[in-house]
Amino acid sequence: MEQPSIILRTVCPDRPGLVSQLTTWISNYGGNIKHSDHHTDQDAGLFLSRIEWNTNTFKINKLEIHSELQKIAFELNAQFSLNYSDEVPNIAIFVSKQNHCLIDLLWRVRNGELKMKVPIIISNHPDLEIIAKDFNAEYFYFDTFSLDKSVVENQILSLLKKFDIKLVVLAKYMQILSDSFLADFSSVINIHHSFLPAFKGSQPYHRAWKRGVKLIGATAHYVTKDLDEGPIIEQCTVNVSHRDEVDDLIRKGRDIERIALSRAVRLHLNHQIFVYNSKTAVFD
Amino acid sequence: MEQPSIILRTVCPDRPGLVSQLTTWISNYGGNIKHSDHHTDQDAGLFLSRIEWNTNTFKINKLEIHSELQKIAFELNAQFSLNYSDEVPNIAIFVSKQNHCLIDLLWRVRNGELKMKVPIIISNHPDLEIIAKDFNAEYFYFDTFSLDKSVVENQILSLLKKFDIKLVVLAKYMQILSDSFLADFSSVINIHHSFLPAFKGSQPYHRAWKRGVKLIGATAHYVTKDLDEGPIIEQCTVNVSHRDEVDDLIRKGRDIERIALSRAVRLHLNHQIFVYNSKTAVFD
Amino acid sequence: MEQPSIILRTVCPDRPGLVSQLTTWISNYGGNIKHSDHHTDQDAGLFLSRIEWNTNTFKINKLEIHSELQKIAFELNAQFSLNYSDEVPNIAIFVSKQNHCLIDLLWRVRNGELKMKVPIIISNHPDLEIIAKDFNAEYFYFDTFSLDKSVVENQILSLLKKFDIKLVVLAKYMQILSDSFLADFSSVINIHHSFLPAFKGSQPYHRAWKRGVKLIGATAHYVTKDLDEGPIIEQCTVNVSHRDEVDDLIRKGRDIERIALSRAVRLHLNHQIFVYNSKTAVFD
Amino acid sequence: MEQPSIILRTVCPDRPGLVSQLTTWISNYGGNIKHSDHHTDQDAGLFLSRIEWNTNTFKINKLEIHSELQKIAFELNAQFSLNYSDEVPNIAIFVSKQNHCLIDLLWRVRNGELKMKVPIIISNHPDLEIIAKDFNAEYFYFDTFSLDKSVVENQILSLLKKFDIKLVVLAKYMQILSDSFLADFSSVINIHHSFLPAFKGSQPYHRAWKRGVKLIGATAHYVTKDLDEGPIIEQCTVNVSHRDEVDDLIRKGRDIERIALSRAVRLHLNHQIFVYNSKTAVFD
Repeated sequence: MEQPSIILRTVCPDRPGLVSQLTTWISNYGGNIKHSDHHTDQDAGLFLSRIEWNTNTFKINKLEIHSELQKIAFELNAQFSLNYSDEVPNIAIFVSKQNHCLIDLLWRVRNGELKMKVPIIISNHPDLEIIAKDFNAEYFYFDTFSLDKSVVENQILSLLKKFDIKLVVLAKYMQILSDSFLADFSSVINIHHSFLPAFKGSQPYHRAWKRGVKLIGATAHYVTKDLDEGPIIEQCTVNVSHRDEVDDLIRKGRDIERIALSRAVRLHLNHQIFVYNSKTAVFD
Repeated sequence: MEQPSIILRTVCPDRPGLVSQLTTWISNYGGNIKHSDHHTDQDAGLFLSRIEWNTNTFKINKLEIHSELQKIAFELNAQFSLNYSDEVPNIAIFVSKQNHCLIDLLWRVRNGELKMKVPIIISNHPDLEIIAKDFNAEYFYFDTFSLDKSVVENQILSLLKKFDIKLVVLAKYMQILSDSFLADFSSVINIHHSFLPAFKGSQPYHRAWKRGVKLIGATAHYVTKDLDEGPIIEQCTVNVSHRDEVDDLIRKGRDIERIALSRAVRLHLNHQIFVYNSKTAVFD
Repeated sequence: MEQPSIILRTVCPDRPGLVSQLTTWISNYGGNIKHSDHHTDQDAGLFLSRIEWNTNTFKINKLEIHSELQKIAFELNAQFSLNYSDEVPNIAIFVSKQNHCLIDLLWRVRNGELKMKVPIIISNHPDLEIIAKDFNAEYFYFDTFSLDKSVVENQILSLLKKFDIKLVVLAKYMQILSDSFLADFSSVINIHHSFLPAFKGSQPYHRAWKRGVKLIGATAHYVTKDLDEGPIIEQCTVNVSHRDEVDDLIRKGRDIERIALSRAVRLHLNHQIFVYNSKTAVFD
Repeated sequence: MEQPSIILRTVCPDRPGLVSQLTTWISNYGGNIKHSDHHTDQDAGLFLSRIEWNTNTFKINKLEIHSELQKIAFELNAQFSLNYSDEVPNIAIFVSKQNHCLIDLLWRVRNGELKMKVPIIISNHPDLEIIAKDFNAEYFYFDTFSLDKSVVENQILSLLKKFDIKLVVLAKYMQILSDSFLADFSSVINIHHSFLPAFKGSQPYHRAWKRGVKLIGATAHYVTKDLDEGPIIEQCTVNVSHRDEVDDLIRKGRDIERIALSRAVRLHLNHQIFVYNSKTAVFD
């Protein structure tokens, strides 16, 4: 059985001695570093660091770690994210009618590829309830055609609180979350079925077909107020030709959507992503 | 020594019996088909066909072929393109200061990958004249800063006529050809350093870096009046990460620019491209 | 509703007039060709052709088609394969303990990507019976540890006959089919978890890790007597690095195994594959 | 003008406190770390570290650095490699008749992509002398057909010494270096025109064509006594189909050979490669 590890992500203004200071602090309490990766964004003047070390030899507890890091954060003007590898967070998946990303994510959870629980699935269509049942998730259907959007979003926000949801994954959820929703709950990953920033907005495969592109793409990104403008986590492409109709683009696209989205969720769960300046640094 | 072959491309309204009619005509004169590929664009109601057959057993000459095809074209409301595999057309390459696409194309010509001659290289900078010399091409430098654009373009058009140029390749030519130029000479392939339609226009790598994309692209396309909107021939991508600065994107981009452009030129020279409805069908 | 189409694959010694003869025969009976692709293997002296045309305007019935083609086959020394696009053949999937390829195939069947039925799933382990139930397939478990191999294979062959199976897909079936089995039933597609011919045989991911490769692959191929030597249909690769342990290779490999296998099965179902000289020509 | 940086690669048995110890040492002398990447190979029990920091604020000189690192190396049982980013080492390129890798490397040197000098080019054919001239390199032709291999190799080894060569790049050099040569000079990168370990040895494209693979590859690796068994640095692949003859494989292969080889040389020059246990860890 592998020992759980502590994962510390740091973002702060760059200055000499940062790696030394952080790793010496870890070393002084007996931590043995498993992974350590650092990046300086010269342009932004920022230092980014991700360090992972074993808990079993580490001599201070969670509370003490937290308290010590607060002091260091103050001194370095740093933002810390502290996580433990044995955390299994609750994730909510939002879907509409298409099932491929949903099934793919749930299958990867069951096979141990994605260390998360999916207690709830939320949809604006009743179609995929059967899949929720198969995977022991509660399915909440909101009729977004007849109900007021703000009412629906408030009910969803309540559910996210009730089920202690840490991340929302939009697995082909063909609805736009309002600014007010995102102000309340901002940890949201979306899969967009194009190679962003090409074909923002609706019907990207139809527009890609019309434009005659020779590659189509899929983009997993964090959701922000500006539609399809959020920080990009992962992008995949696949070749297409004149022999492919729009339906073929949609079919081929499903495979890269599944892969881009599941990779992005995995990177998020492993705390390998930094978000800053409207983009990501992915430490893989 | 391989026998030259005849390449017939046909575009006409779809109807039953087209493949039979064309191939029977070829067969009746003793032609042995080497390659034959047909596509029906159901949406456009168009039939596209490319047939390649040996000349050595074919019983009628170029003039007769031409005359017979005109009759068939009239009957089928078809557009024919007729080429011979032993044609070695004259191509003009337009460049600015970057040499990578130019050298790559010339190297492929010398190695026999691209069956074309490059008698002239045209530039708005004097920098690359030395390369022209190495490859026995005449180098024409036009000072686009001090000269009037229409004057320059008229001189270039004269050169294209004088040297019997069949295709212009914009190998990182950082100038926009005017509508009037394109009205006079329309067979132009450009390499754009992005995955079109993303990052149309100038400084695509800078904008890609700022947007934080995880893949960058290059697009070879025919040039039309609408900048970066011409029919796409070939697209390539390469992975990038947060560790790549703009300079790294530019460096990585050079490799995919060279490959996308040289593939597009090769497909053009082999008469494998159909252009219609602002896009291409590439028979490879 | 799309009209069904007739798909004719032809393999015969190359000679002039073949495309004309075939397409004229189709045209004479009112067939309108939707797709038509021809290839001459100069090395082997063979002509390969795949023609697809609509049934709705075709004036002769299946029996007459068959009878006429027999005459032409005799004349051309040709082998014909005749199929109809509305056929939905019965496929048997063989598995051991890993579920990813099985679930992926069944999901694609349910979503209409693969036009086939899966009445039976055969395994040397009881583990995946629950999945069979979910997708209404009968699950047959054979204890290959205690039972004699020839006994098991004979029972399997009986099942294949009973359920009118047209194709067997080995979706991570960690058993070798005997020569005698393959003599009785030869239409078998396997997924091998390496980039063949590298890492033939067992534990390819372990060996790839040990060798320190920078890409791993998956290969879908027809099964022949010689293990991992059958005609290759489809190959995919994915990047790996020193940070990937064997378990990561296995995880990353699952994604390319699923894609390579499902593409191969789809190409087979669409009658796009020719097998000759121990390799394939894939008309896509 | 960018300040030069110091690059320290460390390999030693893993134990707690290593990152801290190294980075504190750097920090104590005023070094500001630009890049820092660490990896623990759990299987081998080894710690690998690459740290890059600015020279301008670093308070001790090369001699002192060297002396201090020797003490640390003794304590940690570590192997250090110390380099400076402004070093421009002398590289020898070995070729036979094919010019594509040679030209590509020289072009990248001229464009500043590869920070190295190429004072000598060595060949067993006279063909490529003209290229050497273009790029101001001395060309040494050895007639390996009439001369004894050990005689030739000894002369080559003398040249490597005379020109202070740090790395040999086999850019399609169709000769095998003897064990005795490699014992004398071991820093050699080769490009093999297959996806190793598939198609080791001669004529890989012919064998790939015969096997009917759907992807071909190129592998850049360090050379060891066992032919094509050396540590792999970089691998690339490209799609092929039944329409590709052996000549097409060779043509397509040239593009991936150039890219795999130039990437490998660049990684080597940037000191991003660790070699151990017959494989590489590439920190990119």
